[in-house]
Amino acid sequence: MALTATAVKERSLLGLKDLSAAEISAILDRASYWDAKEEKMIPVLKDHFVANMFFENSTRTRFSFEMAEKRLGAQVLNFAAAASSVEKGESIYDTVRTLESMGIDAGVIRLKPIGMLEELAKRVSVPLVNAGDGNNEHPTQALLDLYTMKQHFGELSGLKVSIIGDIKHSRVARSNLWALQKFGADVKLCAPENMRAPELSTYSPYIPMEEALCADVVMMLRVQLERHTDGLIKSAEEYRLQYGLTEERAAALAPHALIMHPAPVNRGVEIDDAVVEHPQSRIFKQMQNGVPIRMAVMERALL
Amino acid sequence: MALTATAVKERSLLGLKDLSAAEISAILDRASYWDAKEEKMIPVLKDHFVANMFFENSTRTRFSFEMAEKRLGAQVLNFAAAASSVEKGESIYDTVRTLESMGIDAGVIRLKPIGMLEELAKRVSVPLVNAGDGNNEHPTQALLDLYTMKQHFGELSGLKVSIIGDIKHSRVARSNLWALQKFGADVKLCAPENMRAPELSTYSPYIPMEEALCADVVMMLRVQLERHTDGLIKSAEEYRLQYGLTEERAAALAPHALIMHPAPVNRGVEIDDAVVEHPQSRIFKQMQNGVPIRMAVMERALL
Amino acid sequence: MALTATAVKERSLLGLKDLSAAEISAILDRASYWDAKEEKMIPVLKDHFVANMFFENSTRTRFSFEMAEKRLGAQVLNFAAAASSVEKGESIYDTVRTLESMGIDAGVIRLKPIGMLEELAKRVSVPLVNAGDGNNEHPTQALLDLYTMKQHFGELSGLKVSIIGDIKHSRVARSNLWALQKFGADVKLCAPENMRAPELSTYSPYIPMEEALCADVVMMLRVQLERHTDGLIKSAEEYRLQYGLTEERAAALAPHALIMHPAPVNRGVEIDDAVVEHPQSRIFKQMQNGVPIRMAVMERALL
Repeated sequence: MALTATAVKERSLLGLKDLSAAEISAILDRASYWDAKEEKMIPVLKDHFVANMFFENSTRTRFSFEMAEKRLGAQVLNFAAAASSVEKGESIYDTVRTLESMGIDAGVIRLKPIGMLEELAKRVSVPLVNAGDGNNEHPTQALLDLYTMKQHFGELSGLKVSIIGDIKHSRVARSNLWALQKFGADVKLCAPENMRAPELSTYSPYIPMEEALCADVVMMLRVQLERHTDGLIKSAEEYRLQYGLTEERAAALAPHALIMHPAPVNRGVEIDDAVVEHPQSRIFKQMQNGVPIRMAVMERALL
Repeated sequence: MALTATAVKERSLLGLKDLSAAEISAILDRASYWDAKEEKMIPVLKDHFVANMFFENSTRTRFSFEMAEKRLGAQVLNFAAAASSVEKGESIYDTVRTLESMGIDAGVIRLKPIGMLEELAKRVSVPLVNAGDGNNEHPTQALLDLYTMKQHFGELSGLKVSIIGDIKHSRVARSNLWALQKFGADVKLCAPENMRAPELSTYSPYIPMEEALCADVVMMLRVQLERHTDGLIKSAEEYRLQYGLTEERAAALAPHALIMHPAPVNRGVEIDDAVVEHPQSRIFKQMQNGVPIRMAVMERALL
Repeated sequence: MALTATAVKERSLLGLKDLSAAEISAILDRASYWDAKEEKMIPVLKDHFVANMFFENSTRTRFSFEMAEKRLGAQVLNFAAAASSVEKGESIYDTVRTLESMGIDAGVIRLKPIGMLEELAKRVSVPLVNAGDGNNEHPTQALLDLYTMKQHFGELSGLKVSIIGDIKHSRVARSNLWALQKFGADVKLCAPENMRAPELSTYSPYIPMEEALCADVVMMLRVQLERHTDGLIKSAEEYRLQYGLTEERAAALAPHALIMHPAPVNRGVEIDDAVVEHPQSRIFKQMQNGVPIRMAVMERALL
């Protein structure tokens, strides 16, 4: 029984920008339900086939989805582009349509080309879950971030969140910005000149580092210095000194503030080695929370 | 309880050349049985271990086998050469014997060296299923092609099938040729001079492109231009103009004719972009049909 | 319910050096129990999640663990470094902690850096099973070797075992040495000057090749000639003539002696092609025995 186009769209999760606060809350609440379960396996997705299609490398995200899918009893097929005929020029569209033809019930997908996910979603007839597309969105990451904040602070309204680092290339920043603002959080951005996304400044101001540290949540982003060859930031050490969460800066945060990072971290660049497992850090907690979030998202896609 | 050598041989599927029409029909009929099932999971292969051993890259074939195996409830272990010690010089034979020693009940195997599969099959004691060996055979692809033709035309006898493209390097062409002729289909080949396999001309004539298009089934083959450096075909565009299924040529096909392609397609080379999802195209249907075919083949190997 | 640090340590298997003969015997006995089972699937680890984390390539070891885990009904997640963000500089520690955060119940791990496994085991709170760490230990390989010897000879006490080849780089040699000596076996080493590990000579003497062949078990090690650029061994052929188990040498072994090799073999270097499947060879039997051994080890880690 094929789903209607509307049903497919409602079950898909392409981004948080177009979701309502109520829809996001429903996912967070359901994640909380799964999080409370003692049992490892709750096979409500038995007999459902999910393809994890990663056209970009990933450790944690693929693994987290696979944990979530398997805890719900789904049949999981993994597809990584590097080991496949995508290498010999097969298009992403053809690959996704191929796996769809073979009878998958939902697809989790990570890809690089901007705008392609929207296109794909229009042309396939199974729900798609975005596991990161270019620098556009990474909705399950932002959902687990919101979940982690709510877990600690109770609610998101009025929460001061600073997102610090390579905003320009960050889908994590975008998904968090869209979602947090729907709940009335006060989001600020902080980045060196060459890592700013000018189009975001109409939604949230760029503020200096000292100010960014006066927040309830300090969300550090992974910096990929190799992407920035314009000479504005000359070295990892220079970046660290200007925008890194050093031990000194971590010690000066408000005692109730949380340190977050989507990982993988560059220890000693955007965050000091000793800060990763700081008492105020929720970095590994974020990863833990990713599993119930993705259980909720996959259940929503399939049931 | 080890199988006898005869039983192993009967359960293996190395190629279609040595199978009778009756044996092929039995597989097609059983695929039809699986195809009609509403349920995703029918765990008749529960407690059976299958190794998918790919010594050459593959997306669709590996995925299709995995879907088929998992729908039947088998335990699946994937092995891809690129991520393994085959890289450090381990022989294919040693790898297959290793996995056999560990207790797999059947192996699906793709490999490049010509003639090696026959050798392997003599030396291991579990059924082997050929997922493509060099330019020799790709039996499950031809089975799904026959299934797709039968689905549309009811029977294969008298069907005019043109196989067009790089015949020389194509295991798909060979498996289709052997199988289709057993059912009395009228198979013709069409290829530029440097992509012909002279030894096949005793089985089926090479005909010009205009003539090849006057058929019930037009089966386009993937062209890998990088393999042809003799200068006879100078560019992808030249190939397209001479041997591609362009929009114009597709429009001129008989209205009842089918367009097929084993995929992955080179859009704009052997087939135009707009023709891939042409109403007469069965390209994605072929992929869909691959799953019940492989369910039938794996059931035959294991039960 | 998190395990105590002591429980985690007792369930982990980092090496054989620190295990007692009684502990090793318990694993061998349990492997024998699993080995005798007719059924392929005995799902005592149902609802347990295992991550196979390979930061170094492997075919047989990963596959053998996966067979063992799946035969016991565990949920298996595979992680191979080559296809992951470890490539972009993520540390092994962060990766393991990540997978732990996501809720795995045990981790099987292979890695290169010496001493890192000890460190990891102190910092994570799930049992870890060593699948090979640098040139330190490869405990499940030695366990299956002991199991294979015991299967043939009944007991290990007094058994004369010669380990021949690249001792310096061999974790297999070390794990076998530590374990065999606990049972009173008489272990001797044999290697060219540049492949010796001087620190082992206090445990076991280096003896010449002719003498090494007068043993109950001749354990050949894989030689990686590319690691030895000091010019002492000039070619594969020279190595073979001096330290290889040639057909002639195999024919001269005691009739009751066993030929063993951890595989993958370099046919024609440390062992002649025809000797791999010699009647006295247990090379494929070793691989077969790896599965019940790893079933026992994973059961010990998880139940």
